[in-house]
Amino acid sequence: MDIRKLFGANVRYYRIAAGLSQEAVAERMGVDRAYVSMIERGSQNATLLSIHETAQALDVKPAYLLADPPAGFDQ
Amino acid sequence: MDIRKLFGANVRYYRIAAGLSQEAVAERMGVDRAYVSMIERGSQNATLLSIHETAQALDVKPAYLLADPPAGFDQ
Repeated sequence: MDIRKLFGANVRYYRIAAGLSQEAVAERMGVDRAYVSMIERGSQNATLLSIHETAQALDVKPAYLLADPPAGFDQ
Repeated sequence: MDIRKLFGANVRYYRIAAGLSQEAVAERMGVDRAYVSMIERGSQNATLLSIHETAQALDVKPAYLLADPPAGFDQ
């Protein structure tokens, strides 16, 4: 799986698990909602610092966002 | 710990564990040795695709490179 899609699927998984909207995550990160949407679609080649900010916004460890997503969630 | 330093410490840990030189890792990645050195020094804000290539060169999962490094190894 393309690592950008893997990252996106995990961001989406943890965002939904936290009951947050893309808007809420974007606000926490200080970015536009469209950026969060691009991340979740797997079209963003995020940098380490963006991965860190996304993990902080979702209150998870950065490594979780590159781990294999839970079975069935990467559709 | 700055995520760039965390990534660098992990790359160095797994490189040494695999008995590889920076030169050997650079060759596997198709980059210059100086790039691997900058990554290990924590001065590179690597992207997801670079993280993926580094993980492949070290034959580890990308998430390992963002996990907490083994105790005592982050000097």
